[in-house]
Amino acid sequence: MSHIRKRLSKPATESVVKYTSSLPFDRRLYRHDIAGSIAHARMLAKQGIIHQEDADTIIKGLTDISREIKQGEFEFKAELEDIHMAIEAMLFELVGDVAGKLHTARSRNDQIALDMRLFTKEATTETLARLRQLQQSLVEMAEGNKEVVMPGYTHLQPAQPVLLAHHLLAYFEMLQRDVERFNDALKRTDVMPLGSGALAGVAYDIDRNFVARELGFNRVSQNSMDAVSDRDFVIEYTAAAGICMMHLSRLAEEVILWSSAGFDFIELDDAYATGSSIMPQKKNADVAELARGKAGRIYGNLVALLTVMKALPLSYNRDLQEDKEALFDSVDTLLASLEVFSGMIASLKIKKENMERAAGRDYILATDLADYLVSKGETFRNAHGITAGLVGYATEKGKALNQLGLSEYKRFSPLFKNDVLSISTKSSISARNITGGTAPQQVKKALAKAKKIIGEPD
Amino acid sequence: MSHIRKRLSKPATESVVKYTSSLPFDRRLYRHDIAGSIAHARMLAKQGIIHQEDADTIIKGLTDISREIKQGEFEFKAELEDIHMAIEAMLFELVGDVAGKLHTARSRNDQIALDMRLFTKEATTETLARLRQLQQSLVEMAEGNKEVVMPGYTHLQPAQPVLLAHHLLAYFEMLQRDVERFNDALKRTDVMPLGSGALAGVAYDIDRNFVARELGFNRVSQNSMDAVSDRDFVIEYTAAAGICMMHLSRLAEEVILWSSAGFDFIELDDAYATGSSIMPQKKNADVAELARGKAGRIYGNLVALLTVMKALPLSYNRDLQEDKEALFDSVDTLLASLEVFSGMIASLKIKKENMERAAGRDYILATDLADYLVSKGETFRNAHGITAGLVGYATEKGKALNQLGLSEYKRFSPLFKNDVLSISTKSSISARNITGGTAPQQVKKALAKAKKIIGEPD
Amino acid sequence: MSHIRKRLSKPATESVVKYTSSLPFDRRLYRHDIAGSIAHARMLAKQGIIHQEDADTIIKGLTDISREIKQGEFEFKAELEDIHMAIEAMLFELVGDVAGKLHTARSRNDQIALDMRLFTKEATTETLARLRQLQQSLVEMAEGNKEVVMPGYTHLQPAQPVLLAHHLLAYFEMLQRDVERFNDALKRTDVMPLGSGALAGVAYDIDRNFVARELGFNRVSQNSMDAVSDRDFVIEYTAAAGICMMHLSRLAEEVILWSSAGFDFIELDDAYATGSSIMPQKKNADVAELARGKAGRIYGNLVALLTVMKALPLSYNRDLQEDKEALFDSVDTLLASLEVFSGMIASLKIKKENMERAAGRDYILATDLADYLVSKGETFRNAHGITAGLVGYATEKGKALNQLGLSEYKRFSPLFKNDVLSISTKSSISARNITGGTAPQQVKKALAKAKKIIGEPD
Amino acid sequence: MSHIRKRLSKPATESVVKYTSSLPFDRRLYRHDIAGSIAHARMLAKQGIIHQEDADTIIKGLTDISREIKQGEFEFKAELEDIHMAIEAMLFELVGDVAGKLHTARSRNDQIALDMRLFTKEATTETLARLRQLQQSLVEMAEGNKEVVMPGYTHLQPAQPVLLAHHLLAYFEMLQRDVERFNDALKRTDVMPLGSGALAGVAYDIDRNFVARELGFNRVSQNSMDAVSDRDFVIEYTAAAGICMMHLSRLAEEVILWSSAGFDFIELDDAYATGSSIMPQKKNADVAELARGKAGRIYGNLVALLTVMKALPLSYNRDLQEDKEALFDSVDTLLASLEVFSGMIASLKIKKENMERAAGRDYILATDLADYLVSKGETFRNAHGITAGLVGYATEKGKALNQLGLSEYKRFSPLFKNDVLSISTKSSISARNITGGTAPQQVKKALAKAKKIIGEPD
Repeated sequence: MSHIRKRLSKPATESVVKYTSSLPFDRRLYRHDIAGSIAHARMLAKQGIIHQEDADTIIKGLTDISREIKQGEFEFKAELEDIHMAIEAMLFELVGDVAGKLHTARSRNDQIALDMRLFTKEATTETLARLRQLQQSLVEMAEGNKEVVMPGYTHLQPAQPVLLAHHLLAYFEMLQRDVERFNDALKRTDVMPLGSGALAGVAYDIDRNFVARELGFNRVSQNSMDAVSDRDFVIEYTAAAGICMMHLSRLAEEVILWSSAGFDFIELDDAYATGSSIMPQKKNADVAELARGKAGRIYGNLVALLTVMKALPLSYNRDLQEDKEALFDSVDTLLASLEVFSGMIASLKIKKENMERAAGRDYILATDLADYLVSKGETFRNAHGITAGLVGYATEKGKALNQLGLSEYKRFSPLFKNDVLSISTKSSISARNITGGTAPQQVKKALAKAKKIIGEPD
Repeated sequence: MSHIRKRLSKPATESVVKYTSSLPFDRRLYRHDIAGSIAHARMLAKQGIIHQEDADTIIKGLTDISREIKQGEFEFKAELEDIHMAIEAMLFELVGDVAGKLHTARSRNDQIALDMRLFTKEATTETLARLRQLQQSLVEMAEGNKEVVMPGYTHLQPAQPVLLAHHLLAYFEMLQRDVERFNDALKRTDVMPLGSGALAGVAYDIDRNFVARELGFNRVSQNSMDAVSDRDFVIEYTAAAGICMMHLSRLAEEVILWSSAGFDFIELDDAYATGSSIMPQKKNADVAELARGKAGRIYGNLVALLTVMKALPLSYNRDLQEDKEALFDSVDTLLASLEVFSGMIASLKIKKENMERAAGRDYILATDLADYLVSKGETFRNAHGITAGLVGYATEKGKALNQLGLSEYKRFSPLFKNDVLSISTKSSISARNITGGTAPQQVKKALAKAKKIIGEPD
Repeated sequence: MSHIRKRLSKPATESVVKYTSSLPFDRRLYRHDIAGSIAHARMLAKQGIIHQEDADTIIKGLTDISREIKQGEFEFKAELEDIHMAIEAMLFELVGDVAGKLHTARSRNDQIALDMRLFTKEATTETLARLRQLQQSLVEMAEGNKEVVMPGYTHLQPAQPVLLAHHLLAYFEMLQRDVERFNDALKRTDVMPLGSGALAGVAYDIDRNFVARELGFNRVSQNSMDAVSDRDFVIEYTAAAGICMMHLSRLAEEVILWSSAGFDFIELDDAYATGSSIMPQKKNADVAELARGKAGRIYGNLVALLTVMKALPLSYNRDLQEDKEALFDSVDTLLASLEVFSGMIASLKIKKENMERAAGRDYILATDLADYLVSKGETFRNAHGITAGLVGYATEKGKALNQLGLSEYKRFSPLFKNDVLSISTKSSISARNITGGTAPQQVKKALAKAKKIIGEPD
Repeated sequence: MSHIRKRLSKPATESVVKYTSSLPFDRRLYRHDIAGSIAHARMLAKQGIIHQEDADTIIKGLTDISREIKQGEFEFKAELEDIHMAIEAMLFELVGDVAGKLHTARSRNDQIALDMRLFTKEATTETLARLRQLQQSLVEMAEGNKEVVMPGYTHLQPAQPVLLAHHLLAYFEMLQRDVERFNDALKRTDVMPLGSGALAGVAYDIDRNFVARELGFNRVSQNSMDAVSDRDFVIEYTAAAGICMMHLSRLAEEVILWSSAGFDFIELDDAYATGSSIMPQKKNADVAELARGKAGRIYGNLVALLTVMKALPLSYNRDLQEDKEALFDSVDTLLASLEVFSGMIASLKIKKENMERAAGRDYILATDLADYLVSKGETFRNAHGITAGLVGYATEKGKALNQLGLSEYKRFSPLFKNDVLSISTKSSISARNITGGTAPQQVKKALAKAKKIIGEPD
């Protein structure tokens, strides 16, 4: 029976032990827990709260435990409540009663807050690295297909021609916001909570800043009651992950659409596609479909976390234990999704001709006609009306715009001159020559900026 | 390399294999998958689609695999995509090429739909059993404390005295709605999808009703495209689970409040409480706190599932694989919560005196005074105003209502007579003698009904 | 100042009045509130709790108020907290002090529970009617295009040919489950809560069953504390609405895809499409896009309601006021969406040739080839492998399957005979002749069943 | 009929007009829309795209419209689709055909993106101001009750004594994170999207930076396709609002608990409390309860927004229209909640004696006893065990810890000396003298820091 139950006259029933134990999932915090304990022991010795040799013994024991767990040699006892207890129990076995000194000036409430912050910092750093990797794939794909023209869509209807590179860089922008968001969240994660005790602070002359420095934290927490019950950083990571997965779900949707028969703009590399058990001809974008679905999972985790925290009085309540699986799952899902997307995007085969053919259809240059009329002095709204009439006429005749003769144009406005016939996909794209526009010149600039952002040579 | 990849020229990268594999979690469907396959093989033979001896071989092989998995002797190969593939691969190993006949007239799309329905049916049945168990604990606790009076609260303020049994039976009602809701959901789960093939139905003369009967289904699905892409039953289970966990979270909140120092109405049995690592005097309602938090988790699963299904075109898409973990987690969480609550409630120690003392304070009989005036001919609204004045007066004097003399009452209304002094907690409770009211007579009836519902002798 | 504040020494600040008032949104409950009050008054008189003439006066007054509100002549006073108070204040103005008798044996807690149940019952009935209407549109569209063939998709890849009618009937099935689900929810809504008082039941000899009959309820609630704090019926309506909107979002997605240039399977009627302000050639499926987006709104309402109820102790708490806007918005959104979808679907123009052309491409008959080999004695798995090889070969040669000669087939298996050349889209569809399959015979049966369900002549 | 429908042969049905119109809610963007249009017109003239006098006419017209709307004199026509169309239609009425020039080099897609960003920036600034206001109320309440001692809770059990000021400052910390979070979100909101056109950028020589400066934006967007379909800033505001409302829900829960009979720590000011219609003695924390419930509403809005964006292909889709109501409701809810909380907290009456009495009960000094033993050389774990035994003994004897004699202490450990008898609530609090601890000295420092942060004199 654990020390914690000392005042209780009988053990928890088996179902309660199983219900309350976090060991099956918080064991993955072992590295963070041990790192925190080592820094704590070092500080206790430095401050003279425990003897240096005791600290040394404890640190040696913890180091051994860490190695054993890493090597899979550690036997986690099911009856232990959590990773802290599991490690402490092992420490008692290894170094005897001196292990009891480690918990001085510390509570599990500030200890788990520390572990979660160490974990989240690490996860955020890894997330940032993988975001960069996917940004790089996008940039490379854009760079390698700089001239490719495709239809730009609104309402899934071809609207205006754009460069594929411009389309891909839209995702670069989204991911760049994700990068900023995770960096911002990191500032609020990077706060060292140890020393908060159970809730009120500890009654020892500890050195919190020393511990913070040892563990690479930027700040120490400023209110003990807040520190043991704050899970904002967990929610904020998950909210950022939710937005990021939403971005991936949009990219996924386009990969699915573009590789469907109706579009046929891309072909997935075989390493990133799957087949069908009953339909041998199929090549499915399962990776993209799964990622699209997994957005739901992170949204769900976010809801779970927000619900857990709703209306919790101060300070620590056991509900907080529910923070772990939601965070772990969010981190794992996001990291894996970013990884497979990097590979999937990098290995896409672009069907340039299909894209360009699609960009040449469907009255996609109608806006350009309207702009043409404006350039000749028509008001925009009238120009719009005239073009609409023209498109209606062409549709009825079954003609593309470039199959119309000047005389037909002139029926709709006397402002049409011969130069209207030189409006083309290419002229349309080149005309959008402002910051953020799809003109080749602008896309080139955007690519250069993007490469600078991700630290690549221009 | 699995057959599924036959048309693909190279294997999926490791990260893709890991990303797409469902084996780590769908392996728990092995019983359902094998039961479905056995029924399918039996039907194929009955219909003459495969030979009876082939069916026998296949069924023998499947039975062996089932036993091996149960005994933990089965080695799941990580590179296999899902439980269907894992079992099929093993079947090939065990019985050779004849294994290849099992997939006749079946696709993984209808197969997984079947497995999920079998699982959900089983889970629902178990859920219903545990709901009954918790209802029983509530009834027993109510029965054993039939006379105990406590304050009834609105806005967490003592409002009117009620019987503890009445309060507990409020939860019986909630759980009874849960029972009905799960039973209703079950009707829509109890539908046999096999025969839908990949999406269009199969091109064999199969007997779907035979398979349904073999597996204990009530109906067969009516549209193949719907059948392979329908996960309503998963969502509906999870929505019902969400409402049920919400009920448990309310009960949890009351257990936490009632065992807090400010209320001190109950004491948790030691087997259902935990202590503190730093504060030896504490006895915490961790079980209730965790359940309160776990409501968030099921809400999250519900959001995940609804998000996954949003805007999915027909028919099967890989996004659907995301249905499993959300469902499994919801089932596990709800079943475990119901189990620990049954024990926790059954073992509560009621602090009768504290409840009754609290029920005697705080002008809790004010409504009864107003009702008294109405019975003497005052309109309700005037009676309310008079009582409010009286309570204000008593508060100022620092007196309880039963410390006021008749003359003091009369200052506020001439309708007060001597019998006003006999208004008491007891009279208040007895007066609420209508169906659903807290009068002992009504609570007795409600208990009898409740026992009948859960099948106990009155 | 309202009576409710009588014991309070000063009025609520303006910001509090605004924050707490529900009148801006609960005013739409006026009909339900007045109907409930009339039934209550009638019962009070019948039971001799108030005089018949008082009841008559009250009922007359309430009837007048109802008419005035309906005609927009009623002036709602901003300082009144809710619809109950607004109507009561007006009743005092109209009939004087006798108005004060109406609140006898009633609290706002059971009153609002009643109003919400009346509203939800009505909303459910209307929802059911509109579901039928949309089912009818689907059936008519299927009936009118019974022969049309299209590609059936998995993973948005053409997989097997199906009948358009079969595809449309998949949505009929989804909506039929919605019908059943709303009907089931209705059973738990159809419960009369009046008589529960504030929380403990009322201390008057009321006749709850009389009130239930007057208002058309099937049952009376069985526990007063539950009755005033139960919002399961609100959540259950919203959960059913969430699933239903998810179905609509799937149909919306297909309408958007099918009317996009890549598919070009349908044309929206102009009355259900919108144009573009800048691109005159566009015809956008805005209605479908909005409905797709509005799924999010109902999911959000569901989360809001579940969150509100989480961990609320018994009995009434003001948090419950947050049930209204979420419910109202869910009802309004769902009803409007069902209505516009009925019209949009009914007016779709099917581009039959485009659908059929697409169904003839992309090796969509590969499964049929595999089935062919099985019929000649091959195991399914081998047949699958052979077909995969064949498709690979054809792809390489740039040939469609029906452009291959028998000798080419025979290279992959000696089992191929001359009759393989007669495999066609038509034969593929006809072969899937089992309940729920896409064969014309089955679809005809399904249509007949569907018409029976919605009460149309076969 | 609007210009937008020009190519369509018939008007939208009434139900479609109602379904698609955003005017009922986006009309509140009129100021932002007009400000954007004025800046756009000014830029068009500066660049020579339209004549200066045309720009002047347009700007004059827009200014008049703005005033009219503000004064409520503007008649919104129901048949107009949105605020842009409503204002444009009016502009045509006011200034004639020249109005048609305003839409040059602009689309409704970038226009609404601009309006939403202007609105969100403004909302964020107001949110920050109200956060400061509530922080100020907390600081003042803490400052005015610097000496008040209360029980600190974990698991809603008294755990260790703390200063009330320390408890209140925990909320200051939470709100400070909110401040930082909203400031970070603001950076990503503060981006000017005009010039993105419908999706590809505009084909005019515009000056985007001029417009940005005119409107007070810090940056211009870098990719047109992203800019018209990005709603990250809406989601990010709502996510931050969700976390902030979660904080408020926690504070609300404590206000409710503390004003309940079981705690009786505070009394709400009458201006922030409500009474009961049937129980005149009640004083309810309705404001806090509503805020607690309203957390659900913002969580719901967040889910709605994330769901809307899930899997949307580029670029603009009508689903995006669903961003508005969710954002508006989140802003309104959060601003109103912050406002009422500022007043509610500022006007709380602290029941100092009740707090202090509660802090003296329930073996709340057990941790201090354990710490005492550690200071005498015991290991922490042993000290914990000894104290647990001691508490068990005292509980059994029905004695408080300070009612035990030294000899009784010594039965549990020889390390107990006379000075153990001087352990008190006060000594316990003073001992927690580290950054973030509850010692008066630390709380004083924390107050000083807090005042500096909110710009108050120390």
